[in-house]
Amino acid sequence: MRVAALSGGVGGARFLSGLVDVLDPGEVAVIGNVGDDVEVLGLHVSPDLDSVLYALAGIADEERGWGRSDETWNALETVAALGGEAWFRLGDRDLGLHLVRTRALRDGTPLSAVTADLAASLRIETRVLPATDDPLRTHLLTPAGRFAFQQWFVARGHRDEVDAVEYEGAGEARAAPGVLEALETADLIVLAPSNPYVSIGPILAVAEIRLALARRRVPAVAVSPLIGGRAVKGPADRMLQRLAGGTSPAHVAARYEGLIDALVLDEVDEAGAAELSVRPIVTRTLMRDVSARRRLADATLEAAGALT
Amino acid sequence: MRVAALSGGVGGARFLSGLVDVLDPGEVAVIGNVGDDVEVLGLHVSPDLDSVLYALAGIADEERGWGRSDETWNALETVAALGGEAWFRLGDRDLGLHLVRTRALRDGTPLSAVTADLAASLRIETRVLPATDDPLRTHLLTPAGRFAFQQWFVARGHRDEVDAVEYEGAGEARAAPGVLEALETADLIVLAPSNPYVSIGPILAVAEIRLALARRRVPAVAVSPLIGGRAVKGPADRMLQRLAGGTSPAHVAARYEGLIDALVLDEVDEAGAAELSVRPIVTRTLMRDVSARRRLADATLEAAGALT
Repeated sequence: MRVAALSGGVGGARFLSGLVDVLDPGEVAVIGNVGDDVEVLGLHVSPDLDSVLYALAGIADEERGWGRSDETWNALETVAALGGEAWFRLGDRDLGLHLVRTRALRDGTPLSAVTADLAASLRIETRVLPATDDPLRTHLLTPAGRFAFQQWFVARGHRDEVDAVEYEGAGEARAAPGVLEALETADLIVLAPSNPYVSIGPILAVAEIRLALARRRVPAVAVSPLIGGRAVKGPADRMLQRLAGGTSPAHVAARYEGLIDALVLDEVDEAGAAELSVRPIVTRTLMRDVSARRRLADATLEAAGALT
Repeated sequence: MRVAALSGGVGGARFLSGLVDVLDPGEVAVIGNVGDDVEVLGLHVSPDLDSVLYALAGIADEERGWGRSDETWNALETVAALGGEAWFRLGDRDLGLHLVRTRALRDGTPLSAVTADLAASLRIETRVLPATDDPLRTHLLTPAGRFAFQQWFVARGHRDEVDAVEYEGAGEARAAPGVLEALETADLIVLAPSNPYVSIGPILAVAEIRLALARRRVPAVAVSPLIGGRAVKGPADRMLQRLAGGTSPAHVAARYEGLIDALVLDEVDEAGAAELSVRPIVTRTLMRDVSARRRLADATLEAAGALT
């Protein structure tokens, strides 16, 4: 079964590691968020794509929840000691990847080709595609001002309430090479359990991608990132509450109106299933360990089977 | 006593650490080589200036002989694993400094100002001045072709014999801010025990600096980098043999003709003292440990006293 999966960073990446565990990894194509890409110390950092690469390569740090395992922090420690830009936490191994990517981008290689090269070097069989090679950057409008994503998320610890989300550059952004083909040849489209506004939102802000989903001829299933109305990690619940008026499964599904046929939701949210206009798939969604990830992936795939 | 010292990398840096041990560090100004500066992975690396900074800050790796102590290599290991540019050995802590410097240079800060900032962050009281803020790059003409310094030195392991040395950009290079003032206000000028061709040579290739030395009104003393006609490290002996016809103290002194008043040479080379047209200062020059460095610095300063 060929699956195209839209994904943000950590939560989505965990889900994907379960998905490639129960499927042929070569049959999965990931369409990753680039809205939170950021230039740090002159380097191009793609945090969400990297979380996906690290998860699929089996080198993600499970305890910390982000970045690489066996990481050290000596470069950044030195940067801080020398008064340099040290607000964004870059580990030494992580830095090595950013150096290679930045060099390739400066040489004119598109992000999609760089990402494919990195994936190949990491022996990842799954295609990892940025949503777009064009500049697309998520900005948040808050009572304290307008912030680029990482300024809001990391530098300000996402403490500011969000009044609106803007996807700068989305109007001109084309889908990266391979993205539309992946969506058109898939037997199933999955929206990973990522933040609908700042992880999946920027991907869907690319008109070609949104249109491909709207015109799909195969099932599309979203996995809710909320459990009991709360985000496992990050500000998805606060954003949904303020921007959509609630955190029920229906509020999540409404973010993807016309784009999905089913929503995978947690057992604790089963009461909310009745309000859904798409098919509810009730299961345990907390990805505590490898077997929980496999189970969630299996449930998602089973749901898809029932839809066809 | 105010001292202005011309210096290359490791050997020169060791000498300087002895010098600031026996003098008020704030009275010493280092004029450092930039001819071996190199762009690696999009970063501006100044190996000689950094060797000086690390030595003066007491964070040089004494055993390895170059780079920082307590170093790790995870970024470069990752770069290599990802097929990136890994020929130039950059440690993680070292990389932190290159990131900060590169960022500042890109923002338009001159190398001299960046170096002063780095020195201040490292709590170095000695002024560390690049010879020039302008691009000046050492190239070697060899039977195998023309190579930029680090290509020849690191990538090819300086295995090619050198037929000529070129200082690209030297014709247009101005002395960096502070350099001429340091030479004009010094009570003593010292040429550290560095390679005359590829460490001190590029500094003297800046016309303003060479002229300031030629017109000096204070003693100038060079410390020979050879012991028994052999370089302690590096290709200085092979270069002198091929380019100057020998490795005696006179061959070293001839590289600085008209620019020095005395040459510090090792006891084992005492026989060669008679051929010198400048004053010979015979002492032990091997900088095995801290006390040996202090002794060599003391001998150099004593020599200067005898010259005034």
